[in-house]
Amino acid sequence: MTRIDGRQAQEMRPITIDTDYLKHPEGSVLITVGETKVICTASIEERVPPFMRNSGKGWIAAEYSMLPRATEQRNIREAAKGKLSGRTMEIQRLIGRSLRSVVDLTKIGERTIWIDCDVIQADGGTRTASITGAFVAMTMAVKQYTELKKIKSWPVTDFLAAVSVGVDPEQTELLDLCYKEDAAALVDMNIVMTGKGEFVELQGTGEEASYSRAQLNRMLDLGEKGMQELFDLQRELLGTAADEIMNAKEAE
Amino acid sequence: MTRIDGRQAQEMRPITIDTDYLKHPEGSVLITVGETKVICTASIEERVPPFMRNSGKGWIAAEYSMLPRATEQRNIREAAKGKLSGRTMEIQRLIGRSLRSVVDLTKIGERTIWIDCDVIQADGGTRTASITGAFVAMTMAVKQYTELKKIKSWPVTDFLAAVSVGVDPEQTELLDLCYKEDAAALVDMNIVMTGKGEFVELQGTGEEASYSRAQLNRMLDLGEKGMQELFDLQRELLGTAADEIMNAKEAE
Amino acid sequence: MTRIDGRQAQEMRPITIDTDYLKHPEGSVLITVGETKVICTASIEERVPPFMRNSGKGWIAAEYSMLPRATEQRNIREAAKGKLSGRTMEIQRLIGRSLRSVVDLTKIGERTIWIDCDVIQADGGTRTASITGAFVAMTMAVKQYTELKKIKSWPVTDFLAAVSVGVDPEQTELLDLCYKEDAAALVDMNIVMTGKGEFVELQGTGEEASYSRAQLNRMLDLGEKGMQELFDLQRELLGTAADEIMNAKEAE
Amino acid sequence: MTRIDGRQAQEMRPITIDTDYLKHPEGSVLITVGETKVICTASIEERVPPFMRNSGKGWIAAEYSMLPRATEQRNIREAAKGKLSGRTMEIQRLIGRSLRSVVDLTKIGERTIWIDCDVIQADGGTRTASITGAFVAMTMAVKQYTELKKIKSWPVTDFLAAVSVGVDPEQTELLDLCYKEDAAALVDMNIVMTGKGEFVELQGTGEEASYSRAQLNRMLDLGEKGMQELFDLQRELLGTAADEIMNAKEAE
Amino acid sequence: MTRIDGRQAQEMRPITIDTDYLKHPEGSVLITVGETKVICTASIEERVPPFMRNSGKGWIAAEYSMLPRATEQRNIREAAKGKLSGRTMEIQRLIGRSLRSVVDLTKIGERTIWIDCDVIQADGGTRTASITGAFVAMTMAVKQYTELKKIKSWPVTDFLAAVSVGVDPEQTELLDLCYKEDAAALVDMNIVMTGKGEFVELQGTGEEASYSRAQLNRMLDLGEKGMQELFDLQRELLGTAADEIMNAKEAE
Amino acid sequence: MTRIDGRQAQEMRPITIDTDYLKHPEGSVLITVGETKVICTASIEERVPPFMRNSGKGWIAAEYSMLPRATEQRNIREAAKGKLSGRTMEIQRLIGRSLRSVVDLTKIGERTIWIDCDVIQADGGTRTASITGAFVAMTMAVKQYTELKKIKSWPVTDFLAAVSVGVDPEQTELLDLCYKEDAAALVDMNIVMTGKGEFVELQGTGEEASYSRAQLNRMLDLGEKGMQELFDLQRELLGTAADEIMNAKEAE
Repeated sequence: MTRIDGRQAQEMRPITIDTDYLKHPEGSVLITVGETKVICTASIEERVPPFMRNSGKGWIAAEYSMLPRATEQRNIREAAKGKLSGRTMEIQRLIGRSLRSVVDLTKIGERTIWIDCDVIQADGGTRTASITGAFVAMTMAVKQYTELKKIKSWPVTDFLAAVSVGVDPEQTELLDLCYKEDAAALVDMNIVMTGKGEFVELQGTGEEASYSRAQLNRMLDLGEKGMQELFDLQRELLGTAADEIMNAKEAE
Repeated sequence: MTRIDGRQAQEMRPITIDTDYLKHPEGSVLITVGETKVICTASIEERVPPFMRNSGKGWIAAEYSMLPRATEQRNIREAAKGKLSGRTMEIQRLIGRSLRSVVDLTKIGERTIWIDCDVIQADGGTRTASITGAFVAMTMAVKQYTELKKIKSWPVTDFLAAVSVGVDPEQTELLDLCYKEDAAALVDMNIVMTGKGEFVELQGTGEEASYSRAQLNRMLDLGEKGMQELFDLQRELLGTAADEIMNAKEAE
Repeated sequence: MTRIDGRQAQEMRPITIDTDYLKHPEGSVLITVGETKVICTASIEERVPPFMRNSGKGWIAAEYSMLPRATEQRNIREAAKGKLSGRTMEIQRLIGRSLRSVVDLTKIGERTIWIDCDVIQADGGTRTASITGAFVAMTMAVKQYTELKKIKSWPVTDFLAAVSVGVDPEQTELLDLCYKEDAAALVDMNIVMTGKGEFVELQGTGEEASYSRAQLNRMLDLGEKGMQELFDLQRELLGTAADEIMNAKEAE
Repeated sequence: MTRIDGRQAQEMRPITIDTDYLKHPEGSVLITVGETKVICTASIEERVPPFMRNSGKGWIAAEYSMLPRATEQRNIREAAKGKLSGRTMEIQRLIGRSLRSVVDLTKIGERTIWIDCDVIQADGGTRTASITGAFVAMTMAVKQYTELKKIKSWPVTDFLAAVSVGVDPEQTELLDLCYKEDAAALVDMNIVMTGKGEFVELQGTGEEASYSRAQLNRMLDLGEKGMQELFDLQRELLGTAADEIMNAKEAE
Repeated sequence: MTRIDGRQAQEMRPITIDTDYLKHPEGSVLITVGETKVICTASIEERVPPFMRNSGKGWIAAEYSMLPRATEQRNIREAAKGKLSGRTMEIQRLIGRSLRSVVDLTKIGERTIWIDCDVIQADGGTRTASITGAFVAMTMAVKQYTELKKIKSWPVTDFLAAVSVGVDPEQTELLDLCYKEDAAALVDMNIVMTGKGEFVELQGTGEEASYSRAQLNRMLDLGEKGMQELFDLQRELLGTAADEIMNAKEAE
Repeated sequence: MTRIDGRQAQEMRPITIDTDYLKHPEGSVLITVGETKVICTASIEERVPPFMRNSGKGWIAAEYSMLPRATEQRNIREAAKGKLSGRTMEIQRLIGRSLRSVVDLTKIGERTIWIDCDVIQADGGTRTASITGAFVAMTMAVKQYTELKKIKSWPVTDFLAAVSVGVDPEQTELLDLCYKEDAAALVDMNIVMTGKGEFVELQGTGEEASYSRAQLNRMLDLGEKGMQELFDLQRELLGTAADEIMNAKEAE
């Protein structure tokens, strides 16, 4: 079977990550997954939210947004509506939680790493691209602070990436769905995984449908496969920071 | 190993569902799972949201809230804060999406079934109790409308229930976590399943931790086990409506 | 004349108050007046609002809400609308002000007693039931804190209860109106009274009508009569706390 | 006993009402009661709120606000805070309800009369001054529309005015409290009355105090006395419109 | 050419400023420009906004509002809408920025001067009238604080006034536009100027039109002419405070 | 005198405009002015806002936003704060008003052209870059609709660009200020001009300072000079659309 865009079921879209994309942030990338483009930045602030004060630990907070015309139809800005949608909140919480799972918060000190994921162009998989890109931006910001001796001990304990899988209307499992596939899918699942191959998040939704445990297993197989490609790219881009992560993993 | 409240790892808490709990709603229950108590109501409105108008289909929308003192510490009301938290939005979306997966929306006509889940007392598992209870309230409301001939053809296609599973700090998988277990858990997973044993939702989060595929499989085994107890109770309470559901399943 | 529900004009509906209704709050009751059901909780917080800081005095704050389907038609949640209605604000202010009139705030120390009144089912008289029930919940919370020696000296100076009276379209004065009577009434009056028979609040509204001083007097007579029944029930439920209140009254 | 400002207990402050105060509104007055000054305007809009559509009836809606520096300390604007206070909502509802009680809404047609009461300077009694002034502004707007034949049949059925009474710390009942008296009062009561001497609203609050039925009666006596002065002034200012009201009352 | 209201193109409307208009504020005026009436008050608060704390400097903040029926059609209150319009924000920022340009903020100490401009009646030029009136109210407040020795050294360094100019549909430049002229104008320009004849703000907008540099120059000539009338009136009203300003200018 | 970044006083920063920058919008560019980068998109919607309905005319609406880390310090998102700042509203209104001045709204039919300007990186002059870039995006969207015959007659009547000028602390007039120059400037002026050299907007602010008419004239001279560079670039990029504009200008 060939997909809408000519791919095989188990094939990822082309992916690139441009690092140091912006001038001001401590870390920033433009991640491109097929036609999906997301600017991910990491900003380090010298204080933590009230609920973390005097804990000796840092925090990682994430925000996510789309440009109004990232999509085929123009969306009303959430700033204009005066509130965030449930979808945005879900995604923000997911990104922050995922990144926190691979960072030793005691090692970053009482600082907040703000992650901003702004979707410039959307074609499916914006939340998984955000996580994969944000990990790189965050790690580069951490690297800068480590080199400046503001962070004393390397805090990133593993790689982290995300990918979507799903089931199409013909009951075929697909890897890395583009927007049209996602809109038609019976099941939509996002997988966030660490470099050592463990799950951080697994969110699988039957869209007015349900799925069997056998289907779940086939989707997880696809996801694990796609993940390798993402980790290879991250390792290559991060250079010496990747070595620090490998050391941190071994030390565990 | 014995748990905080004396249960075995694979043991559910006692569960009861009081039907026809309130006077006004078309369907209403009080569901009690251990110390967790949720009032679930189903209200049928003779119109649909703007995005569904003239579609010939109905809609199911869910709202979730906690009384301020449902918890050990009093929470500030979301009405007083003027906005819903991300957590509330996530839960509301989950409940609505889950219920819609077992209802043929074309058969309910251009109506909205409003599901309200109000947590009176919280001790872990409020979202899964909400889904399990809301399914009963919704089915009883549908039954009333079917008997009144307002709904012509039975629309509920399967049973639906939810349960939580997790991994405790000693790496043991647990079924149906109470609040203290949930707060300490390394992994927290919510499973929503249909009567025929398929997943509608699977949401598993490593809380500043990650989990292997083997652990995932053991958690899913526990979840499937717990689910049977819930379906047995639903079937018993729903009486002739349960028969309608069984017929609908066979007819598929 | 017999009323909609078979009562006499000067007859109250059956009233019950279940104490220790919930697990977490310092005080909690479920008050049932006819078909009206309200959960009233009292939560003690170890700080006061900014405007009371360093005053050496405590504060009592009240919040009121209805479940969306407490009423015949489903209401939109105020949390979803993002703001409280004028009606809700009026009622919250009334409950708080009423309770503060029978508590010596200097004796509770720099603490806030949060009163939450959540209407589970509404059939008229929800604000008066809230006051009558909240007084019991508050007194039980105070009793607990007094026994724990956190509060050194008994602060509740009198009993407090509330009831509605009105004038029906045939110009008959009625005691304790149910919803249908309230909707049709020419005059609607809420009376909040102390155990020694003095007014704390009197709010009488001609609903697109007006009323004479003679009618006012007949309504007040009815209200005073109904109040006795409420004070008898409160006294019985409060046990030794009722004795403390009686002593406090005498000491004045 | 002489009061703060040299008045007797049963003495009103000097009161003036400047009519046709502004150029644009259908009716407008500046009412001055002692040092309290309120601009009251009546604006007629050719439509009704959604809940009144196709009822054949009109509506009267009131809004109330204070300039930030109407008071001794500057208040933050409600527009800047983004929400109305409970106090403002209570007062707005009170003004609207009061005016509606003396207008036959079927006679004004499907129109809304918007009442705006803006307090320019506050020294106690702003809500009662608002009602007394708004009645004049509203009646003049109605008169204009009646003369223009837009309103066919005279709709105002009686005069309407309001005054405050209270109990001072020495247990003396006072008429028409200024701000300092109000701040110190044990009891604060607002009375809204029709020209024929009936109550439309009675709101009496013990401010951390309570009051006996005897005190209530003495306050009502004071209020009835003060009311005559207000009705005399309204009658004089309204000229032929006052005659229409008198005719309407007789016709009842 | 004669204008709508009989004026010549280079003629201002009659202008009056009533000082000490209200009882509570440190400074207050009612400024009347033709049919436009604005209450301007200045309130001094003994603290500064967070971003100015510990700077040793004061701040001047301005707020602007219209009564709902200041205009021909009633406007919905911004407090009722829950947010300020873009127009209001622009005007508030303009007033504050303009006043700050003629005050030495280090000399007023860590205080905020709150300027409130409330339009009672609008007929064009409300923002320029607000600035011209607010300067007088502010200077009188400053004078009071200087006399009380709370402000040690005179901080107002020059006079400040504002006027509008424009281009009408026949390409004639006009001074001080009334509402009807403003609504029809091709160009609308607001000029804020100091007593020594320099610009503080210049905001010229082609309303779906554009204007040449020659037209700009003719408008600026008109504006400079009108400004003299405003400064003469300010000087006369401010008495000894005007002398202080003259001294401050010379001392520069 | 040489500037911070080595430029002469009358020298613009390098400027580039990448067209067709995004996949979905009808028109889109990335405009780069020195280090300032803005994505400008034009989206055409087949309806107009309520106040324009049935007018036979179209509308142009603009929105402006900055990514949180477009600036040196991270800014809180306006979507998270729940409201737009006064600065954002001012800029949005300015962009929309400016573009409408060079478009014949009757010729675009009952459509809205939504202009979105999202600042990716900020280094001064973001609002002027937004206008210059948005004009190109809008014209390309119009060109597409004209070629599709959805728009029948060419509606863009002239070129439109914007630039900032100012006065530095040494009283030198500067063209096209970068952020550091802007922050230190005594006067900050934004000029929006049409291709035929007329002003659409002129907004000049003395930042706690004032400026003479001679200074104004020197700033306008600089602005006119810089504008030529912008129009040359626009003409080159727009190709045949530029010819349409030239024809439309001649036809006037």
